[in-house]
Amino acid sequence: MYMDHSATSPVDPEVFEAMKPYFVDNFGNASTLYSLGRDARKAMEAAREQVASLIGAKPEEVIFTSGGTESDNIAIKGTVYRLKNKGNHIITSAIEHPAVRETCKYLEKNGFEVTYLPVYEDGIVKISDLEDAITDKTILITIMHANNEIGTIQPIAEIGKIARENKIYFHTDAVQTVGKIPVNVEKMNVDMLSLSAHKVYGPKGIGALYVKKGVRLEPIIHGGGHEKGLRPGTENVSGIVGLGKACELAEKNLLEDTKYITNLRDKLIDGILNSIEQSYLDGHRTKRLPNNVNLRFTGIEGESLVLHLDSKGVAASTGSACSSKSLEPSHVLIALGLEHVEAHGSLRLTLGKENTEEEVDYVITAVKEVVETLRKLSPLWCEIPGAERRE
Amino acid sequence: MYMDHSATSPVDPEVFEAMKPYFVDNFGNASTLYSLGRDARKAMEAAREQVASLIGAKPEEVIFTSGGTESDNIAIKGTVYRLKNKGNHIITSAIEHPAVRETCKYLEKNGFEVTYLPVYEDGIVKISDLEDAITDKTILITIMHANNEIGTIQPIAEIGKIARENKIYFHTDAVQTVGKIPVNVEKMNVDMLSLSAHKVYGPKGIGALYVKKGVRLEPIIHGGGHEKGLRPGTENVSGIVGLGKACELAEKNLLEDTKYITNLRDKLIDGILNSIEQSYLDGHRTKRLPNNVNLRFTGIEGESLVLHLDSKGVAASTGSACSSKSLEPSHVLIALGLEHVEAHGSLRLTLGKENTEEEVDYVITAVKEVVETLRKLSPLWCEIPGAERRE
Ligand SMILES: Cc1ncc(COP(=O)(O)O)c(C=O)c1O
Ligand SMILES: Cc1ncc(COP(=O)(O)O)c(C=O)c1O
Repeated sequence: MYMDHSATSPVDPEVFEAMKPYFVDNFGNASTLYSLGRDARKAMEAAREQVASLIGAKPEEVIFTSGGTESDNIAIKGTVYRLKNKGNHIITSAIEHPAVRETCKYLEKNGFEVTYLPVYEDGIVKISDLEDAITDKTILITIMHANNEIGTIQPIAEIGKIARENKIYFHTDAVQTVGKIPVNVEKMNVDMLSLSAHKVYGPKGIGALYVKKGVRLEPIIHGGGHEKGLRPGTENVSGIVGLGKACELAEKNLLEDTKYITNLRDKLIDGILNSIEQSYLDGHRTKRLPNNVNLRFTGIEGESLVLHLDSKGVAASTGSACSSKSLEPSHVLIALGLEHVEAHGSLRLTLGKENTEEEVDYVITAVKEVVETLRKLSPLWCEIPGAERRE
Repeated sequence: MYMDHSATSPVDPEVFEAMKPYFVDNFGNASTLYSLGRDARKAMEAAREQVASLIGAKPEEVIFTSGGTESDNIAIKGTVYRLKNKGNHIITSAIEHPAVRETCKYLEKNGFEVTYLPVYEDGIVKISDLEDAITDKTILITIMHANNEIGTIQPIAEIGKIARENKIYFHTDAVQTVGKIPVNVEKMNVDMLSLSAHKVYGPKGIGALYVKKGVRLEPIIHGGGHEKGLRPGTENVSGIVGLGKACELAEKNLLEDTKYITNLRDKLIDGILNSIEQSYLDGHRTKRLPNNVNLRFTGIEGESLVLHLDSKGVAASTGSACSSKSLEPSHVLIALGLEHVEAHGSLRLTLGKENTEEEVDYVITAVKEVVETLRKLSPLWCEIPGAERRE
C-alpha cells in the first residue's frame, strides 16, 4: 500500500481522462493562430482558472512552470536578481525543501546574504525571530507553508503581514499544502506561491507559480515569450489540463478528504506510538498536515525500515524523496534539535485519499514487526539507555 | 490537414501507449527507495538509453529537461557562468531560435559579448566568418543544427572541428533535426546538444540535453540534485518514457520517413512555385530539412494567409510559432536579406509522416486560391512592379 503521498501521488483517473485528448488528437501548439492551436489555448486558459480558483488568485496571476522546483527558483531568483540594486538580504527558514534551500545556498555564493530562521521543537519559526532578522537590505522572505518531512504548518498570514508592513516581497512554497489544506493567497498575504501538480493527484513535470499582480520578476529561462515571458517554451498543454483538473477536484473535495485523512493520520500516529516503545513523533502534534506522520524509533535506521516495509508491501520514506538517497541526515530533523543518529532513524508515512482504515491497521502491525526485527539486529539499540526494556 | 510539424507534432499512438501506465498505476517517484520508485527509475533509464541511441551518445551523457527552451538555456548559461573567469565572448548565428537568441541578448546585458554570425542568401553561416570571430575570450559557440523557420542546415561538424581546435565549447540546438535527419554527437563534434520531444511525435514539456562526458555546467535551477544536479525536480516519468519511445520510433523509421517526406516537400514546393506567380522559396533549395517549405508571395501578408488557410482546414504558420503572435517581422528572414514587407509575407508549411500526397495536392490548390483572393484585396500588390501581370 502506498503511504508516500508527499513524495508523489497517483494521477487521479478523472485527471487522466481530462488529459487524454491532448496527446494524440488535440495536440495543437497553444501559441499558434489556427483553430487547433486556439483550442489548445482555450483548454490551457480554462486550467489557469481552475488553478486560480483553488488558491483564491486571479487567472492572470498564475504562471505555468515545469514543477515545484522551478516555481521556487523563478520566485526567488526572479525577485532577487530584479531587486539586487535595492538590497542583497534574503530571509528563509532552516527547514526549507532543497528547491528553496539550495537556491539560497547558491545565491549566498553569488553576493547575497541569507538568514536561515531557526525552528524550535515544534518545527515552527518564531515571528519575533523574523522581525529581528529584517534589515534595510532585506528584499525577500521565503518561508514554506508546510514542511515536506514533518508536515509542520507555518504562520504564513502573520509572516506575510510583517513582510507587507516592511515592503519586502514574500514567497511561500505551498507544494505540500495546495489541495491538502485551505490555501488563499489573499488571506495569506503572499506575493508569490509555488505549487506542483504531482503532489495533488496531477501529473509530474507541471506546476505553477502565483505572482501577485504588480510584482515583476526577472525570468531565469529566456526564449519565445510564453507565460508573459516568465516561462518560455512550448506549453505542456496535457500537463496543464491535468493540473487544472487536479485543482478542480481538490477544491471540490478538500473539506471531506481532509477530514477523512486526518482521521487516518491520528489513528496511525496513536497506533504506532502506543504499540512501539521508544517511538517518537517529529514535529507539532496538531499544527501539521492532515496526511503527515513522521516518527523515530530509538536504535533504528530509517533506510532499513523503509526497505523492510517495502518487502511487506508498504511504500514509505525516510524523509524527503530528494534526500532519501544521500547519506546526510535530514537538515529538517537536525533543525528540530535532534542528534545525527536520531535524525537517521526517521520514518515518514504520508497518507492519501485512497488509503483505508484497514491499510492503516496493516501498517501499524508491519511497522511494529519491522522495528522489533531490526532492534534485535541493531548494535545501536543495545548501547542506548532504556534498551534493556526491550524484553 | 496539419502542416505545422515544426511548431509541434501529434503524439504518436505508440508513444502514448508507452506512456499510459505511468500516470495512474506506475506513478512512483523515481527517486524513492521502494519498488514502485525503483520501477519508475528503471523506465526512466531505459528511456535515457533510447534517447542516447538516437543521437549516438552514452546514456549517462543525457540529461532530461522540460523541453528545448530549457535545454538551450542550461547549455548556454551553464557554460558561460562556469567559464566567466576565462572569457566573456559567445559566438552564435543571426538566425537562432528565441530560446538561444534571447538567452544571448540577456547575457549581453549582463557582462557578456555576443557575435551574431551573419547568414547569406542561402541561410547558412560561413566558416571563415566563424574563424574571424574567435578571440581568446571566446568561451562558447552555439549554432543551431537546422533553422525552425527556413529549415536550412548548418555545417555543424565543420563548426565543431574548429571549436575543438580552439578549445571552445560548442553547443547546437538540434530541436528541429533530431528524428528528422541523422544526428550523431560524435560525428558532429558537439559538446552539448538540445532536443525536444514534442517535435518528434513525443509529448510536450519534456526534452533532453546531451552533455559530453567531462563537460561541466553550472545548473540554472537548484534543488534536490536530480539529473546529476543539473536539472533538479521530481522526474516527469511519463514524459521521459514518451520521449524515449519517440526516439526509438524515430531511429527505426528515420530513413524511410525522410525519403517519404522529402518527396512530399519537393512536390509541394514545385507545385506552389509553378502555379503561383511571384512566389519565392526562402532558404537553401536542398540544404534544408526534409519537411520544411517556406515561401513568400509578393503583396501578401503571412498572417492573413494563415487565417484563410485555416478556414480551408489547413494548419500552417507564418514563421516560428513563438513569434507568430508578435508584429515584428521574422529576424530570420531579415537576416536572409529580405525587406520588412517581404519578411511579413512568409508562409511556413512543415510536413510530417502522416501527411499524404492528396493533402499536398489539396494544399497547393488552397494556397493558390487564397493568394489570388488576397491579392485582389491587397493594396500592396498593386503598388508593386510586375503587379500588372496579375490578370
Ligand atoms: C515543499 C516542496 N517544495 C518543492 C518541491 C519540489 O517540487 P517538484 O518535485 O515538483 O519540483 C517538493 C517536492 O519534491 C516539496 O515537497
Ligand atoms: C530550433 C528550436 N529550438 C528550440 C525550441 C524550443 O523548444 P520547446 O518549445 O520544446 O521549449 C524550438 C521550438 O519551439 C525550436 O524550433
